Amino acid sequence: MSFSYEYPHPAVTVDIAIFSVRNDTLKVLLIKRALEPFQGEWALPGGFVAMDESLEEAARRELEEETGVSGVYLEQLYTFGQPDRDPRERVITVAHYALIPSDRLELRAATDAEGVSWFGIDELPELAFDHAAILRVALQRLAAKLEYSTIAFQLMPEAFTLSELQHVYELIGRSPIDKRNFRKRVLALGLIEETGDEKREGAHRPAKLYRVIDRDRVDVIK
Amino acid sequence: MSFSYEYPHPAVTVDIAIFSVRNDTLKVLLIKRALEPFQGEWALPGGFVAMDESLEEAARRELEEETGVSGVYLEQLYTFGQPDRDPRERVITVAHYALIPSDRLELRAATDAEGVSWFGIDELPELAFDHAAILRVALQRLAAKLEYSTIAFQLMPEAFTLSELQHVYELIGRSPIDKRNFRKRVLALGLIEETGDEKREGAHRPAKLYRVIDRDRVDVIK
Repeated sequence: MSFSYEYPHPAVTVDIAIFSVRNDTLKVLLIKRALEPFQGEWALPGGFVAMDESLEEAARRELEEETGVSGVYLEQLYTFGQPDRDPRERVITVAHYALIPSDRLELRAATDAEGVSWFGIDELPELAFDHAAILRVALQRLAAKLEYSTIAFQLMPEAFTLSELQHVYELIGRSPIDKRNFRKRVLALGLIEETGDEKREGAHRPAKLYRVIDRDRVDVIK
Repeated sequence: MSFSYEYPHPAVTVDIAIFSVRNDTLKVLLIKRALEPFQGEWALPGGFVAMDESLEEAARRELEEETGVSGVYLEQLYTFGQPDRDPRERVITVAHYALIPSDRLELRAATDAEGVSWFGIDELPELAFDHAAILRVALQRLAAKLEYSTIAFQLMPEAFTLSELQHVYELIGRSPIDKRNFRKRVLALGLIEETGDEKREGAHRPAKLYRVIDRDRVDVIK
C-alpha cells in the first residue's frame, strides 16, 4: 500500500513550556527567534521531530539544544493542529510542559535563537505562532494537577521549608492556602523528609528544611 | 525558508476510542480491518488527517465515515509517536476518546472495514498496531475524569434513574459507590432534572426518571 503518495504529510514539531519559580514568581522560559517566521519575537522552545526519535525524545532534545536544560520532569500536554497555525506550511505541534527546580541555573541560547530568558507569567511578551494559547493550556494543566498530584515537588530546590512549598502551591493555584491544613496534608503524603537542617526566614524562629524522598516519582493524590 | 525539504515529514493520523454502556457493560467500538497491515484484525476507528482540517474535525470525520457515529462528546486523549508503531512508515497518531449515550443505536461498517462491533472492555480481541495501549490510556483517563467532572452524563440515555447513573459510575470506576452519598452529591450539582415520569426497576417501587439539563456541558467538579 503506497499511501505515502496518496496522503500529503504535515510537518510535526514539539514545543515545550518549561516552568520554574524564581524570585517568588512563577516563570516560563522563552527563546527569542533568530529566523523567520516571527523573527525577533519570543516563542516556546521547540522544533521538528526527527524520524527516528519518539515525541518525548524530540522534546528533551529540543529543550537541551535551545536552552541547555536537561534531566527535568517533562510530560506531554496537548497536540495543536489548526491548519493555519504556521505561515510556512501545515505544522502540527505536540506540546509538552516541563518543570525545573529553582536551584537549577543552567541556561544557554541555541544557535538558532537570539536569546533565552525567564518571564513571569503575568509579564509575558507577545508570543509567536499560537504559543500564547499553548501556554494558557499548560498553566491550566499545571493548576489542575496541583490539586490531585505531587507535581509541585518538581519545582522545589534540593532543600526547602514548608512555607516555601506552600508558596509554590499558592503561586500556581493563584489563591492563598490555610497554613495548618497544608502542613498536615503535605506531611501525611509521606513523600518528603526532614534534612536535619534549619533555615531562618525573616524575623521568625528557624524553620525545618525538607527534601523530596524520591524526586522521580509523581504521585496522584486520591 | 524551505524547511519542507530539509525535514522529512511523518504521516499523521487520528484514532478514536469510543465508549458506551450497553447491556450493563462498558463497551468500546472496534472496526475489523479490511486491508493490510493487520488485515482481518480489530482496531480503533481512525485514519489520516487531511491538510485542511483540524485534528478534531479529522477525528469526527473518521468516526462518522467508519462507524456512522456523529454528534457525540469527543476529546483529545494523547499523541502516540513511537517511531516503529506502524509497519508502513513513521505514523504519529493523535488519539481521541468519545462517549455515546446507550440509547443511540446507529452503526455502520465503512467501506474500508469488514465490520464494526461493540466489545466489552473485559472481553477485547487482540488489537492492531499499539491500539491496546491507546485503549488502556483512554480507560485511565475516563476513570480519572469521572472523579472530578460530569463526563459520565455523556453516556446516559435521554431519561435515566439515579440507580442507572450510579451504575455507570461503578462500571467505569470499577468499584461500588455508597447510594445515599451518590444521590446527594449528584443532585447537588444541579445539572440533572426530573422528567416527571417514573420507571419500575425490578420488584422495587417506581424510580424517578431524570434528564441532563444541558448535554453539551461538561463541568469540572471542584
